[in-house]
Order: sequence, then C-alpha cells, then structure tokens
Amino acid sequence: MAKDIPKDIIEPRLLKGFRDYGPEEQAARQDMFRKIQTVFERFGFLPLSTPVLEYKDILMGKYGEDEKLVYSFKDNGDRDVAMRYDLTVPLARYVAQNKNNLVLPFKRYQIAPVWRADNPQKGRLREFYQCDIDNVGVDSPFADAEVVACLYMALVELGLTDCEIRFSNRMLFYRLFTVPDAEIQQILREVDKVKKIGEEEVLSRLKAAGVSEQGLVEAKALVSVGEGRNALENIARLFPQAADMAKNSGAPEGFTKLLSYYGVPEDAVVFDPLLVRGLDYYTNLVFEINLKGQPEFGSIVGGGRYDGLVSKFSETNIGAVGGSIGIDRLFDAMKDKGLVVPTGLTKVLIADLDEKFMKTYVELVTALRNAGINSELYYEPAKLEKQFKYAESKGIQYAVIMGEDEQAKGVVQLKNLKTREQTEVAIGDIVKKLQ
Amino acid sequence: MAKDIPKDIIEPRLLKGFRDYGPEEQAARQDMFRKIQTVFERFGFLPLSTPVLEYKDILMGKYGEDEKLVYSFKDNGDRDVAMRYDLTVPLARYVAQNKNNLVLPFKRYQIAPVWRADNPQKGRLREFYQCDIDNVGVDSPFADAEVVACLYMALVELGLTDCEIRFSNRMLFYRLFTVPDAEIQQILREVDKVKKIGEEEVLSRLKAAGVSEQGLVEAKALVSVGEGRNALENIARLFPQAADMAKNSGAPEGFTKLLSYYGVPEDAVVFDPLLVRGLDYYTNLVFEINLKGQPEFGSIVGGGRYDGLVSKFSETNIGAVGGSIGIDRLFDAMKDKGLVVPTGLTKVLIADLDEKFMKTYVELVTALRNAGINSELYYEPAKLEKQFKYAESKGIQYAVIMGEDEQAKGVVQLKNLKTREQTEVAIGDIVKKLQ
Repeated sequence: MAKDIPKDIIEPRLLKGFRDYGPEEQAARQDMFRKIQTVFERFGFLPLSTPVLEYKDILMGKYGEDEKLVYSFKDNGDRDVAMRYDLTVPLARYVAQNKNNLVLPFKRYQIAPVWRADNPQKGRLREFYQCDIDNVGVDSPFADAEVVACLYMALVELGLTDCEIRFSNRMLFYRLFTVPDAEIQQILREVDKVKKIGEEEVLSRLKAAGVSEQGLVEAKALVSVGEGRNALENIARLFPQAADMAKNSGAPEGFTKLLSYYGVPEDAVVFDPLLVRGLDYYTNLVFEINLKGQPEFGSIVGGGRYDGLVSKFSETNIGAVGGSIGIDRLFDAMKDKGLVVPTGLTKVLIADLDEKFMKTYVELVTALRNAGINSELYYEPAKLEKQFKYAESKGIQYAVIMGEDEQAKGVVQLKNLKTREQTEVAIGDIVKKLQ
Repeated sequence: MAKDIPKDIIEPRLLKGFRDYGPEEQAARQDMFRKIQTVFERFGFLPLSTPVLEYKDILMGKYGEDEKLVYSFKDNGDRDVAMRYDLTVPLARYVAQNKNNLVLPFKRYQIAPVWRADNPQKGRLREFYQCDIDNVGVDSPFADAEVVACLYMALVELGLTDCEIRFSNRMLFYRLFTVPDAEIQQILREVDKVKKIGEEEVLSRLKAAGVSEQGLVEAKALVSVGEGRNALENIARLFPQAADMAKNSGAPEGFTKLLSYYGVPEDAVVFDPLLVRGLDYYTNLVFEINLKGQPEFGSIVGGGRYDGLVSKFSETNIGAVGGSIGIDRLFDAMKDKGLVVPTGLTKVLIADLDEKFMKTYVELVTALRNAGINSELYYEPAKLEKQFKYAESKGIQYAVIMGEDEQAKGVVQLKNLKTREQTEVAIGDIVKKLQ
C-alpha cells in the first residue's frame, strides 16, 4: 500500500507474437476499423459480439490440421475452454443456439481479435484482429457476390484501390473429377501448393498419399489449366463434365459478371481453379483478395461458402457465406504504401504559465471541450519549450498561452506549433476561433 | 468436406458468465463506446492497445485477494500466461517497458474486455468491457480532478445526468491515524464494509484481527464521522491532526471545488471518508460514481491514484491516476432507465419481385450504398409480406419495390414500413429521395 516500495522488480515484457499498439498506431487502426465498419453497415450487415472463451468442443474439429494452434486450457471449474480461433465458428454456434429467434438471412459483422499459437518466427502474430462479414441462411450467388463486393469496397474505402480478387469453387473438383470423394479431398489439400512447390512435387506427394492413376491424371490436368479466361477454355477442353457448369449461375464467368453489378471492376477479378484455402469448413465458393504487385503481404482478405458448419451444432442445415479482412497484415501493407497517416487526435494545449491562473486555464480548456474541441492542459508552469515539445509529441497543433500581461488585457496568445505563427485573440473569441 | 454430414451434433452453448450480444444490443453498445471514446478524446486521452494475454507474473501481486480470479494457464510453449484482469496493470507494464520513448504525462484510454473468474451466481460476468482513462507521470490534483470530471462527462454524454461522485483519499488514514501502518492497512480493508455489515461487526472483526485499542478508538471515530460537509467538521473535531489537511489542495473541500472548474456540479460530489475500494494498488485518491437513487447497480465507475504500480516493473517511480467505466453494468442500468433505444442500422430494403430484375435491383442497392445509405437486397422473389417482415425484424424503415409495371414506367414504389405509406418515385430520383 501507500508507503511500501516493492523490492522485486518484474521485468516488463511481452509474450512473443503479441504486440502493443501505441497511440499513433492505435489511432490509425481505430480509423481503419471505423471505415471498415461503415462499409459493412452500408451493405446491411449488423454487429454481433460473442465471447473470447468458448467450450473447447465448440471449436474443435473445424480447422483441420491447424486445430493444434487453438489456445485451450482447463478453467478454475475444470472445464475445457478455448480462446476463439476465428469469428466464424462462434457465429455458427450462435446461429444454431438462437435459430428459433433469428429471422434469416442473418447478416452480421464482427470486428474482434482472435488467437492462434502460430510460429512467431515467420512474422505471424498470435493475437490479431479479424473483420468478418457473414450471411447465414441464404443460398444465392447474389449473397456470395455481395460478401466479396463488400469486402472489396471496404478495401477501397481504406484507399486500397489496386486489389485483385481471386476465386474458385470447391465443387469444381467434385463436378469435374471422376474419382471418389476421399481421393478428391486428398487432391484438394495438395493442389493449392503448386505455386510454392511446383507441379512435380505436388503430383509426387499425391502419389505417395495413395491417389489412383486416374486421380493423378485429373489432378495433372487441373494443375495445367492456368487461370482467368484461359482456365475456363482449358477446363472445357480437358474435362468433358465441364459443359454442365456453364448452366450454373455460380459458374466462374457468371460470378465475375455478378460482382460487376455490385461495382467491382471485372479486371479486378481472376478465376483461379487451384485456389482451395486451408480451412476445412468451406464447401463451395472460396476467394481471397490480394494487393496487386505486393505478393509479400499474401492475401489480406479470405473467405468462402461453408454450408456444413452450422449443422455441426444443429440438425437444421443452414448454409452460409462469409469473409474476413486480416487487419494487422493490412495495417503493415498500408504503412508500406504510405497510407497510414498519423493524425493528432488532440488539437489544443492550454499552456501553464503561472499556477495562480490554473482556475482560468481549466475553465478555458473546459469551454473548448464543451465545444467539441479535443484539448488539454499542462499541469505545471514548466518552461514553454518543454510544454510545446510535449504538445508536438502528441500531434497537437495549437497552444493557447496566457500569462500576467494577457490576463490584464483579456486576451490569449494562440500559437500554431507547425508554422510557429502567433496571434493575439480576445479570450471570449478563442472557442470560435478554434472551432 | 462438401458431401459429409456430421453425425455427432455438438450442443451449442455458452460458458457461464459469458454472453452474446445480438445485433440490437450490440449496436446500442457500440454507440455507447463511440460516445465514451469521443469524450475521452475531447479530454486529450489517446488510444492504447495491449494484448489479452500477458506473462502471468506481470499480473500477479497487484490485485490482493482477488488475484485468485485471474484466468491463467500454461501455453503450448509451457509458459505461464494469464488473461488480463484489468487494463491498469498492462498499462503500467507498457509505461515501464517504453519509458525511454514516452513523453510524460502519458494520457491514454483503452476500451476493451477483461476476464475474471468471478461467481456468476451473483450476476457477475466473467468477461466484461472496461472503458479506462489514465494519466501517468503527473502528480497534480488537477490531473486527479480531470480524470474524475472526464468520466463524469462521459456518463453525461450517455444521457446519465443524475450521477453522484463519491471520493476519499487513502492518505487520510495515514494522516489522521496514529497507529502503525500495518494496523492502518488492516483497518482500511474492513471499514468500507460498514454500510453492509454495520459498525459493530466491523469493530469486532478488527479486534479479532488483532488491531490495538488505539486503532479501534480511531477506527470507531472515523466510522462515526458521516459524509460530505458533516464529515469534514467531524474529522476536524475528532482528529487533532486534521488541521494539516486543509493546507493540501488535494483536501476534500478543495477537490470538490476543482471538479467544479471542470464543469462538474458541486452537489454531484460527496466526500465519503469510508470509501476505500478493493484493489491493492490505490495509494491516494479513490473515487466511484453511482447512479443516484439506483444503488442496485452499485458503482458504475471507479478509480483512483496508484503511485506505486509502475515501479513494480521499473526502478523509476512514476505516479498515475485513472478510472474505469464498467460498461456492462452500465448497459443494464441504461436499459432500466429506457436510455437504450434500438435504432435500425439499415435503412432500405430493395424487395425482390422477379428474378429477371435482379441486375437492376443490385444496381439500385449499389447506387444507394455508394451514396452512403445503408441498404440491402432480398435474394429471392418471396411473398412481399415475408420480405417486409424480414425488413422490420432488422429495423429497416423503407422498402423499394419494382416489378413489371414499375419497370415499364421507369419508376419504383417507395414504401414506409412504419406508416405503411407508399409513394411512386422516378427510378432516377430514388437515391436523392432517400438521402
């Protein structure tokens, strides 16, 4: 308590993979959240909040091999609990739990942190924010396109006008391939690595995994089709079953067109049949959005349709489509592009020249605050240069100075700390002047 | 994957003490967060973000007997980690860790959840949000008053104009009492229970704890002084040492006056010498804010000065003062007062009358969104009444209807779902009409 001084000092430190964001960075991040939220709401998504901790069995069995990255432990009551790994599984749990009270389709957004015990050596954070939108209870290509368009528009709102949407559909494999589903699943897990490890390595892995000759032939064919319009032509040539696909409005060409109705330029959209994405729960559409010419940031948005997830918690089968902006990777990308501009949140400092004027200073700062001007007060009559330095460290642009002389004349000095200009203002006019 | 249907359904459920907030509630909560943040920034506080997980030893030894409520566990790397219990200890860790780069005073706010394994039987949540402001590195009664005034003004911004600030100063005990510090600490822990368990019980507990005769005499005197102006007079009469206190600007009368400079009405402030508050780390000022006439909600704001906390992580001694709004208790109180008004976040629904007009519908909804109007689209040509019901469940006020006839005439029907009024609007005018 009051008079004790602790003898053992604990070294202040952060866990690996965890970060603090100081005022300048955090103000910029909050600005990003606000912009993203505005676009989400513009598209008719509504906010939902779910807890950080869930029963462990709610989360398990949904993330494939990445399940080992879930933070889980026994709580004081000996319950197996886990920190959320994404915002999608808790949403599925919420919908299943409240299905009798929800009017479908249920469109929700959630902007919140998630935790993954990933490898921080690779620059992966263990705590990071996701900005998710999902549309539950509707099976329409328009709902799919709307999710993708909304996420794209959120990036545009952030000033990222040069993005590329890549998409595919996992059903493609089931429609085109003739081998059994179990083999298709094996192939799905490997083919999206072709850009990293090459075609040969992918095929040899599939062979090692016991994929049949026919499966290898079909995998090899798909790996060779390329992307975009070429891919469509090559698929039509190589796979006799492809003819059916054109009838489906979710087919690649149709999807690009749909996106264009929502204002997404067609040349920002690429059909990439090898895109699979890691999470187990996607069933149909899968997509990601990248920054053009900046592959080092990887995909900053990802998502897809997951029609089987809610039914893990309920006998009702409810389809869903959604996607997520990974805000931390995006923040780094935006810093790189010079799009993170630190903006001072506080505008005015009332300098302290003399303790006997403190009452006037406080009344002045209160008048400014009442007028909605973010302002603060220095608490001791330190040297003015020190006070200005403090103001500048916080991005404050104006200082209001009042000493003996000004008090006598009923004025204050208003100093612009950027231009160093100083003007005399009647004390009664200062609020209006700064508004 | 695609064709599998899970056989084992996991019961969707929440951990005790944890809550979901659906769209209506969450929209209202976000609105509260935004208002509080606005006031915090108006007072010159800047945002900081610290992680949810910390090394366990960072949190331990700061919360007294409540320490057992900290959620802690071993992570995959066998590290002892803990979920944050409040936002104050992580702030102290941050300041100690970054002290060479921070310009003091450091004024920060943080609005974020914390976790306590408290008893949910008593209606206590185990996950709840705190809205904190703290001013680190300044030892001035003005800084103390500013924190209290800022939190008070945040409540005013939320529409809670009938609040009561209760405050005391733990140093009071050290200044007034003549017994040793160890005894004072024992007395501090018990006297604030006098309203709950009565004077007799408090004194008998103190006696049982081994407090001396003199200690009991002084405790009995303090317990009898009452509150407000009476308390001041009684203290002056009962404690010879009280004369010193008047000289200190942090003294009770001075503090009420200081708060009034910041715009807090004097009659909203009560000096309560028995207010101690639970947390170990407070050293001087302690305060709380209650809703007048609603004791059932307890204190919705609490805080104080904690001059020893940063020095648990650093040899530099840095003083600090801060406080916190407990948003969840406040949310319940505001619901009770009818101050939580559900406001629809989405304004317009484009109804779907005919699949062949979907392209036009999408272009219409996109035009509305581009104009900043929160809008959405129904995805199938269901019965209009079903579509209106959906809109109303989301608080949507307007429906835009366009079928064969309207298409031919180049118009839409604009229906106000509250008044059931319907007007015909040229399709080119609809955006302007809804703006």
